[in-house]
Amino acid sequence: MSLLVVGTVAFDSIKTPFGSVEKVIGGAATYISWAATFYYRNVKLVSVIGDDWPETEIHHLRARGVDTEGLQIRKGQKSFFWEGKYNNDMNSRDTLATDLNVLADFDPILPESYKKSRYVMLGNLTPDIQLRVLEQLTARPKLIVMDTMNYWMDVAMPSLKKVLSKVDLLTINDDEARQLSGEHSLVKAANAILKMGPSYLVIKKGEHGALLFYRNSIFFAPALPLQDVVDPTGAGDTFAGGFIGYLAQSDNIQYNYMKRAMIYGSAMASLCVEEFSLQKIQTLTHDEIVDRLNEFVKLTKFNIKLNYDSNDDE
Amino acid sequence: MSLLVVGTVAFDSIKTPFGSVEKVIGGAATYISWAATFYYRNVKLVSVIGDDWPETEIHHLRARGVDTEGLQIRKGQKSFFWEGKYNNDMNSRDTLATDLNVLADFDPILPESYKKSRYVMLGNLTPDIQLRVLEQLTARPKLIVMDTMNYWMDVAMPSLKKVLSKVDLLTINDDEARQLSGEHSLVKAANAILKMGPSYLVIKKGEHGALLFYRNSIFFAPALPLQDVVDPTGAGDTFAGGFIGYLAQSDNIQYNYMKRAMIYGSAMASLCVEEFSLQKIQTLTHDEIVDRLNEFVKLTKFNIKLNYDSNDDE
Repeated sequence: MSLLVVGTVAFDSIKTPFGSVEKVIGGAATYISWAATFYYRNVKLVSVIGDDWPETEIHHLRARGVDTEGLQIRKGQKSFFWEGKYNNDMNSRDTLATDLNVLADFDPILPESYKKSRYVMLGNLTPDIQLRVLEQLTARPKLIVMDTMNYWMDVAMPSLKKVLSKVDLLTINDDEARQLSGEHSLVKAANAILKMGPSYLVIKKGEHGALLFYRNSIFFAPALPLQDVVDPTGAGDTFAGGFIGYLAQSDNIQYNYMKRAMIYGSAMASLCVEEFSLQKIQTLTHDEIVDRLNEFVKLTKFNIKLNYDSNDDE
Repeated sequence: MSLLVVGTVAFDSIKTPFGSVEKVIGGAATYISWAATFYYRNVKLVSVIGDDWPETEIHHLRARGVDTEGLQIRKGQKSFFWEGKYNNDMNSRDTLATDLNVLADFDPILPESYKKSRYVMLGNLTPDIQLRVLEQLTARPKLIVMDTMNYWMDVAMPSLKKVLSKVDLLTINDDEARQLSGEHSLVKAANAILKMGPSYLVIKKGEHGALLFYRNSIFFAPALPLQDVVDPTGAGDTFAGGFIGYLAQSDNIQYNYMKRAMIYGSAMASLCVEEFSLQKIQTLTHDEIVDRLNEFVKLTKFNIKLNYDSNDDE
């Protein structure tokens, strides 16, 4: 059993109203893998970097149980680079630079040992690359989660819809859900998107939390209100990593596990944004995670006893 | 024991991208009183109207157990009128007209039987009027809740701060919390506002739910994602009415009751916005409220057992 993670491994330069960092460790697959390993140690990474990405970071990942056989290293080339600037509200950002570098002609090759992965997390990438990964699998995974973004809706909608028809769960933000569905109401948007393939939909609303849609049920995981948000970069990927890491550990994707996974993912994301880059995640202790989960319980727990079916909540 | 409600009783004209209504029943105290009566029937209303406000609506209120002795009716004058237009996202609105009419020289006079009210809800009004109400009370209420808005922060901050120093709980929206405190982080904003007088702070975030701050604790009540929002007018007041109505009924303001009150208020608000004006609230059944509360339980319930102290949750 393993968790296959596909996505970017990159450098980021990040400016916020409160500080900035240059060429730090970033990339969707980096955040996803790190977050997942707190729950599940058999992660198999597929990505591409240049020989400029620090070898110590690769060792770090390996030490966390991440198999990097599928991480292609291109000699003499540069890793994917993103530069962004957050606005005063920390909720919106402008991209200042996107240098694809090694990503421009990335062809994901799955090592033999990856091809029967039971859990698959497709980080945000060209839909065609996501498809290429799915095509190489020799057994249908128990759960395929896909992340994407508005850019692919603008330039590659047919491919995006093809991937969508093959996955179990889609994670996107609220604006993207509206764009993909053409519906303003998130309930209507979710109903439309669930008809495109996935059985589950997670709509991420940043500081306003995240919604899980499944059949006629909706579950809401709030974001924890924080004293300071230092750097929102990677929050969505950290959420996804905690989410699928918890499910892989449980090896159970029933709705009640999905709900719990939403909280585990949200807890990881709330920790991630308290420092730049992966600084907080890379030094996290088990106790810090338990404390944070506890804060989520306190934030949401109330006791109204109605005709709610407690069997629902095994 | 009684619940004193002070606020506007008015006419509204409302435009949304999906429809419009002209000169319908509105006003903060109308929404608050109606919502409160589903939990608690001894409501005492203080407000002012012209003789154009429909007498049948006054009878309606009385039939719900609302004492209207404190409702001044000015012969030959017009009731307060507000006209607004919601933008496409239904989250922001523009005020097209505000005709103060009878509100221009409103002096709230508390009938003798109102002066020992145990629960007091100060709807959004000039801070000086809110103060005048508090001055007439002959016994300190168990709970004074105050609503206000950014306009009073712009034009009457000293009076606003004076009222604030005398109340137990303030309800405002997120932008107003930032304006009042000068802090962007809602956690920091709450800490600053709790030093201005109130023991409790509710920050309303519209479709993104509401936060309750008390000492070092935060509780979050989500908004229920809805298929269609028809008219957000009065949602905040309906929340406040359900909130304080539930507390008055329980006659218990401990934190656990406050948390439950947040959910009761949110349930009432979610019902309110499904129709224009008070249409839904005025025809609501007990079963509809129970069903809605049940939806809130389903929306938020998950079972992670950690070291959360269950005594917290009496």
